[in-house]
Amino acid sequence: MPQKVRIALDAMGGDVGASVVIPGAAISLTRHPDSEFLLFGDRALIEPQLAKHPAMKKVSRVVHTDVAVSSHDKPSQALRRGRKTSSMWLAIDAVKKGEADVAVSAGNTGALMAMARFNLRTLPGIDRPAIAAVWPTIRGDSVVLDLGATIGGDAHHLMELAVMGSAMASVLFNLERPTVGLLNIGVEEIKGREEIREAAELLRAMNLPQLEYIGFVEADGIGKGAADVIVAEGFSGNIALKATEGTARQINDFLRAELSRTWRSRIGYLFAKNAFKALRDKLDPNKSNGGVLLGLKGIVVKSHGGTDAEGFAYAVDVGYEMVHYDLLNKINQMLNPDGGAPPSAPTAQEAVS
Amino acid sequence: MPQKVRIALDAMGGDVGASVVIPGAAISLTRHPDSEFLLFGDRALIEPQLAKHPAMKKVSRVVHTDVAVSSHDKPSQALRRGRKTSSMWLAIDAVKKGEADVAVSAGNTGALMAMARFNLRTLPGIDRPAIAAVWPTIRGDSVVLDLGATIGGDAHHLMELAVMGSAMASVLFNLERPTVGLLNIGVEEIKGREEIREAAELLRAMNLPQLEYIGFVEADGIGKGAADVIVAEGFSGNIALKATEGTARQINDFLRAELSRTWRSRIGYLFAKNAFKALRDKLDPNKSNGGVLLGLKGIVVKSHGGTDAEGFAYAVDVGYEMVHYDLLNKINQMLNPDGGAPPSAPTAQEAVS
Repeated sequence: MPQKVRIALDAMGGDVGASVVIPGAAISLTRHPDSEFLLFGDRALIEPQLAKHPAMKKVSRVVHTDVAVSSHDKPSQALRRGRKTSSMWLAIDAVKKGEADVAVSAGNTGALMAMARFNLRTLPGIDRPAIAAVWPTIRGDSVVLDLGATIGGDAHHLMELAVMGSAMASVLFNLERPTVGLLNIGVEEIKGREEIREAAELLRAMNLPQLEYIGFVEADGIGKGAADVIVAEGFSGNIALKATEGTARQINDFLRAELSRTWRSRIGYLFAKNAFKALRDKLDPNKSNGGVLLGLKGIVVKSHGGTDAEGFAYAVDVGYEMVHYDLLNKINQMLNPDGGAPPSAPTAQEAVS
Repeated sequence: MPQKVRIALDAMGGDVGASVVIPGAAISLTRHPDSEFLLFGDRALIEPQLAKHPAMKKVSRVVHTDVAVSSHDKPSQALRRGRKTSSMWLAIDAVKKGEADVAVSAGNTGALMAMARFNLRTLPGIDRPAIAAVWPTIRGDSVVLDLGATIGGDAHHLMELAVMGSAMASVLFNLERPTVGLLNIGVEEIKGREEIREAAELLRAMNLPQLEYIGFVEADGIGKGAADVIVAEGFSGNIALKATEGTARQINDFLRAELSRTWRSRIGYLFAKNAFKALRDKLDPNKSNGGVLLGLKGIVVKSHGGTDAEGFAYAVDVGYEMVHYDLLNKINQMLNPDGGAPPSAPTAQEAVS
């Protein structure tokens, strides 16, 4: 582990850019004073923000570029227009060159994934990367992946996700053999897409020492903590994530409106406000901000594009922790225990994405 | 519309069977006294329940069978073992023969779908059926389909879902031209699976008079009421449904536990209990019980297998309302305005399911 955790920030990423990224990083810095920052983006936008956050300014270096990836760019456009010049590319490139330990961006997910993959390359034995996140459940936290990096994917891809996800879970949660479930629309073996049933057979047959495959998990089992690691193809994983976030937000809004409707309920709120604070903390989408791109030769964290400074701070925290726990080496060791390819590495196969 | 609404019940369906089905139907009967029931199943289990519900007994006729579809049966097994003999088949068959207006079952979804499709056949212009449900949103109710009837499906299948779903929405919500969104993992046109992008082009190009296509909707947009009708392929739709249900249930449990933890919060609960009652009503999964099988020459309603009598009553209500609103004829009219095939009916195409 390095003395300092060096974090490269795409200061132009997200709906707002520098005025969320820098205040957000400043919040994370108060929690992790051993962080250092490399800020990539338009100096004219970055400097005024740094002026407002002197502690942040002291540990930051700015690298100017006026090229930014737009949220509307297709991955291919972003690569064509922003390769070697955009703030997103440069943040990733800092990781590649060993100048930073992790890159964090709130920019366009597809572009971030394409650039990270193009520049950092996938780990030996991994065909396609994934986005994983820590998901709060009633039993504790779980790792859920893929949240939208790769659309489609065969049984072998799902097996790779299981291996990467359990490496992340064992590192973060200190588990020797995390339980792994495959997201499906029923728990019976006959249910669901063919590739999921095949992946189940594959995981059972492989009986890997680093994970315990427990079967199919339905979408309502994620929040129950049915497994330490929930594996889904990126489309379904993204649907589950957004449905959950949306429901939590709507319930929060509904309850807030109901509690302010009458004087009785306002008094009730005053008495029970610790309970509501606990619920609000539980539902706070900011706290689960920060998807980790897994399967690459470097760590990249994706923040929600529409987050505020508090939320971006959590994404920076996630990046910090991944470095702190030395996740990348640990995943690589699990995937490639002999420094070679993992146990069963068929030929690379691309799906529509 | 018939004088009485004649409802065929699979009295053996669901985790519990007759002791949920009959008390549930009895509750629905109090809300819709013009219902009549045909009960299919084991007379030895049905009669004791009817004895406890005299009003229900008065309007019910029992047809004995001791064959029941198990929740573990594959659709093909269920058809082989239960065709012409099982309570599920007989309930559907009563609709086919015109002895009932609608069939309601809490049994195995795959078997129900297979039997309904095999016996009732699909409407002209529909390749594969769907399950649709009314989904409560902050803006009102939406129709969401497919919730798991058909796994996979091409652009044309999604277009059929859009047409059926908007027929249901226009009938239930009295809308001339319901808005329709396609569930996707981003709102940008470049996002998501290929068949979804193709369906978007198809719906735009067709510019159907009976629906207004508004674009992609992310999973957190469903609960916002982003469109009157949300169209998804069955796997994704089921994931969205279960993730939403699970989240709501967990928040409910969490809040209940927090509110009873201290005397302060217990007092707060007493003052604010109307607010909590409103939330509980909003979150009550029973109230959204009852998926409608669309696309068949007959109405079949699927209840959750694990529901209680109160929940099953809602599924019976849904069946009642579909008959009451004459949904089937109205969908058929929308699909086949000239009594023929719909505007663009390519050859039937089967996907993995």
